[in-house]
Amino acid sequence: MESIESPAFVPTQRSTVKRLAKRAEYDRTTVYQILDEGLICHVGFVVDGNPFVIPTAYGRIEEQLYIHGSPASRMLRTLQTGIDVCVTVTLLDGLVLARSAFHHSMNYRSVVVFGTASIVSEPEQKLEALRAFTEHIVPGRWSEVRPPNRSELTGTLVLALPLVEASAKVRTGPPVDDEEDYALPVWAGELPLELATAQPIADPRLSSAIEPPAYVTAYTRAATRQA
Amino acid sequence: MESIESPAFVPTQRSTVKRLAKRAEYDRTTVYQILDEGLICHVGFVVDGNPFVIPTAYGRIEEQLYIHGSPASRMLRTLQTGIDVCVTVTLLDGLVLARSAFHHSMNYRSVVVFGTASIVSEPEQKLEALRAFTEHIVPGRWSEVRPPNRSELTGTLVLALPLVEASAKVRTGPPVDDEEDYALPVWAGELPLELATAQPIADPRLSSAIEPPAYVTAYTRAATRQA
Repeated sequence: MESIESPAFVPTQRSTVKRLAKRAEYDRTTVYQILDEGLICHVGFVVDGNPFVIPTAYGRIEEQLYIHGSPASRMLRTLQTGIDVCVTVTLLDGLVLARSAFHHSMNYRSVVVFGTASIVSEPEQKLEALRAFTEHIVPGRWSEVRPPNRSELTGTLVLALPLVEASAKVRTGPPVDDEEDYALPVWAGELPLELATAQPIADPRLSSAIEPPAYVTAYTRAATRQA
Repeated sequence: MESIESPAFVPTQRSTVKRLAKRAEYDRTTVYQILDEGLICHVGFVVDGNPFVIPTAYGRIEEQLYIHGSPASRMLRTLQTGIDVCVTVTLLDGLVLARSAFHHSMNYRSVVVFGTASIVSEPEQKLEALRAFTEHIVPGRWSEVRPPNRSELTGTLVLALPLVEASAKVRTGPPVDDEEDYALPVWAGELPLELATAQPIADPRLSSAIEPPAYVTAYTRAATRQA
């Protein structure tokens, strides 16, 4: 899974997966695929000793994870002071139904990133981050929409979190029951889950002459991008 | 939205939604519906000043949120000492495509709960919590599977977080563009997203005589439960 161009993450004390270490993965390909498939991350930070966990969208360019928002946001105002942050992305792949209550589980892929976020102030890099942000959510969208103007750029705070200290955790496959429970007459197996789209809903103010583009009608998350 | 039986949450300093306060909701019905539809929460806690955000399953009985796991879990070992915790559940309902990059958004429903988790040690309450846990993920499952035995009960740490300090945040509807952008010839609207199931995959060791039950083949998250 590793290559010279893409060395694996080196587990640190806090990024080492402690529980069920057999599910841990530290190679960049796995971590990037999970980050690129996800749409929302959960950002954890500490204010006056209290933990906060806030969901937000994100983007990635190579070894940087970007989050953005209003300069007035409590989360972004806090993070820009350079405090430690933990960003987690979780993809739920299925429910795992065992024959015993105890062995029920879920199939999932998650990434946890630790680090310190810093402000992106260089305009060119900021614009690139916003492009990555939009393209992460809807690949193909950026070139069709009006790009940010000067006041929108100023009014957006972009933070970068270097992807240095990260780990993935992955569970796949059927349930694992106690040997004596396999004889129980109970259905057991996996119920796969996936993020599906429904019919696009046109903005009420949209001209009926404008059809939704293919990147909307054929939208899918799985394997949309490569690391 | 409120009733005498179910008073709204009283916003505290940390549970008050600061950004886009118009999206904030504090009534229990909204908060409980989001918690009951979600499958995974993200638990935030602080160890040696570092924030951790860990995805995990959960259950709810009335005004208690339950999480569980191995007594060896770093997360649960830390939480049982009674530190502050922040638990966030996020449901992603759709992508909001505006005519400008700046106004792209997502439709979502999220809940953030603050509080202190405590150990559930009373066996009767612990078993009830585990039942709620399984029924939360797959309603109808508990009565069909082998219940936890004494050693499994002992080997499971259950924590309760009282639902006292909580808030919800909800975005719905079409994009909101700048007035001058509505004339742009760009498709705009919502792309609804939902958690869908694929065909159940039987455990390779399952007898082919056992068919998947209706609560598996007709599985759906939306509105599975009432508060």
